Amino acid sequence: MRSLAIGLDLGGTQIRGALVDAEGTILSRRAEATPASAGAAAVVAALARVAQEVGAQARGAEIVGLGLSAPGPLDAEKGLALATPTIAGFVDFPLAAELSAATGLPVRLENDGIAAAIGEWRFGAARGLGNMVYATVSTGIGGGAVVDGRVLRGRMGMAAHIGHMTVVQGGERCVCGNAGCFEAYASGTAFLAKARRLATLDAGSALHAAGAALTGAAVFEAAAAGDDLARRLVDDEAEMLGLGFVNLLHLYSPQMIVVGGGMSHQFAALGPAIAAYVARNALPPFRDVPVVRAALGDNSGLVGAGAIAFEAAAPAQRRLSAAG
Amino acid sequence: MRSLAIGLDLGGTQIRGALVDAEGTILSRRAEATPASAGAAAVVAALARVAQEVGAQARGAEIVGLGLSAPGPLDAEKGLALATPTIAGFVDFPLAAELSAATGLPVRLENDGIAAAIGEWRFGAARGLGNMVYATVSTGIGGGAVVDGRVLRGRMGMAAHIGHMTVVQGGERCVCGNAGCFEAYASGTAFLAKARRLATLDAGSALHAAGAALTGAAVFEAAAAGDDLARRLVDDEAEMLGLGFVNLLHLYSPQMIVVGGGMSHQFAALGPAIAAYVARNALPPFRDVPVVRAALGDNSGLVGAGAIAFEAAAPAQRRLSAAG
Repeated sequence: MRSLAIGLDLGGTQIRGALVDAEGTILSRRAEATPASAGAAAVVAALARVAQEVGAQARGAEIVGLGLSAPGPLDAEKGLALATPTIAGFVDFPLAAELSAATGLPVRLENDGIAAAIGEWRFGAARGLGNMVYATVSTGIGGGAVVDGRVLRGRMGMAAHIGHMTVVQGGERCVCGNAGCFEAYASGTAFLAKARRLATLDAGSALHAAGAALTGAAVFEAAAAGDDLARRLVDDEAEMLGLGFVNLLHLYSPQMIVVGGGMSHQFAALGPAIAAYVARNALPPFRDVPVVRAALGDNSGLVGAGAIAFEAAAPAQRRLSAAG
Repeated sequence: MRSLAIGLDLGGTQIRGALVDAEGTILSRRAEATPASAGAAAVVAALARVAQEVGAQARGAEIVGLGLSAPGPLDAEKGLALATPTIAGFVDFPLAAELSAATGLPVRLENDGIAAAIGEWRFGAARGLGNMVYATVSTGIGGGAVVDGRVLRGRMGMAAHIGHMTVVQGGERCVCGNAGCFEAYASGTAFLAKARRLATLDAGSALHAAGAALTGAAVFEAAAAGDDLARRLVDDEAEMLGLGFVNLLHLYSPQMIVVGGGMSHQFAALGPAIAAYVARNALPPFRDVPVVRAALGDNSGLVGAGAIAFEAAAPAQRRLSAAG
């Protein structure tokens, strides 16, 4: 019998689900809004509904399990949402167990950055490599790392919280409460806030008129058209991403860094400057490591979640990856 | 027949060697000065001499191999010293092969931070844990990480170059050429340079008289005696170490951080302030991870190198750790 898995990607605004095969192909998909303020039970019910809808397309194939990509911090080992700031009721909440009860399927929970890293590693830009880092640059910055052919999970499955490494001591306040985090400087949120702030101050810039309505895409368009402020904003963004990525090179020694999330849509504008920063500032043996755009776009986490369900269903492989 | 291994620790000033058993017990040891400016052949000859001297104490036991801890950057997979700044002639130098030819033993080369991490993980403070990070804070800052029960090596065995993560964008120039590295702020070298600079400017401090002859130990003594400048220097050092360690918590999710190197001799003064920084600034689920002093003192790298030789001699185990 053919084996399939369900991948779910729980975001602050949307729940997305897919029926996937072992090669990462999406056979069916559904989405609905996240009832983020309606409490944990409502979120579990919505997740189960999406799972059942995509599962109904299995046409007699066996569904081996369900992988759930969710925002951290969570204890992936125990299946707990510890304190998700964007979803009401997700405090020490047994998310995996509740979803398993609601669907009748084995559920494996994974931090969203790690799930997307698995997607890009198994089926995307870093396919076949033993060492890679995935960074999602969006509202915040998250990620996942594969080293020596294994996905890093660490204590409570919390490795690779890359958005919260301090890169500017005493710098900008971050949503996490700490100061100077990578996320507070290089996320899409940080980029847009800075662009709007500087645009209102610079009457000579093409960005000035939009003011508080300015979009990130408009900044990249104006930069391409030669606007000085916009070009400086794009250069600064590439520099901060380069700085964070150099840290990731030195810490994980990947063969490739894969960039996903909303900011990756602007990779054509950012990529060359990021590569130049790396070539200039990394220790010499790390300078030639490529930084590339995610190959699976918005689906990295979804197919990664499916791959996690397959992994959980293969006991021998699972034991190997949890060794020690 | 009893099995033993030789561990060698190559430093910029000293070569140390030990005959060790599989439990990390040191049975015999030797040291000699590193002929750092005499060329690669002289260094290999000195390493071989130390190895032969400790090996001569094996009394009929089998010597399974030799593990060599050396300063990076090096390609541990291929056994190459790539560009060691402190040793003349170590540029793309086939160190493992040359030492193997000189000793007749199989040689496994390892970055010194990773070797010391293995020592503390297998036989020291982090014994029995599946997740740990080791940081040596000395002339520079190096380290190694164990995640999910495995030592991280990464591309070319270069993972965990923790001293060269940028923590202060646009900050102090580092020996690596980049700016704002953790090492440029928190190493013993950085601590002492700052102490001497500020001591010459502060006639009211007990540190003032020593001026350029000031030692690190004297700063810690003066801090304990209540000198304002000395206390500020110690507080700043603990804060910078805490900042770097919070990054390591978020990136690797260890169950413990182990601190070695010269600065760890002052752990009684630094430890509480480091723990306070972590408790204040890490993401909540990481705040209770202990930061402790290395248990093996200066021998972490030496017994780690021995453990690496045993690992290399056990093909099944080696295959497992190189999987993927």
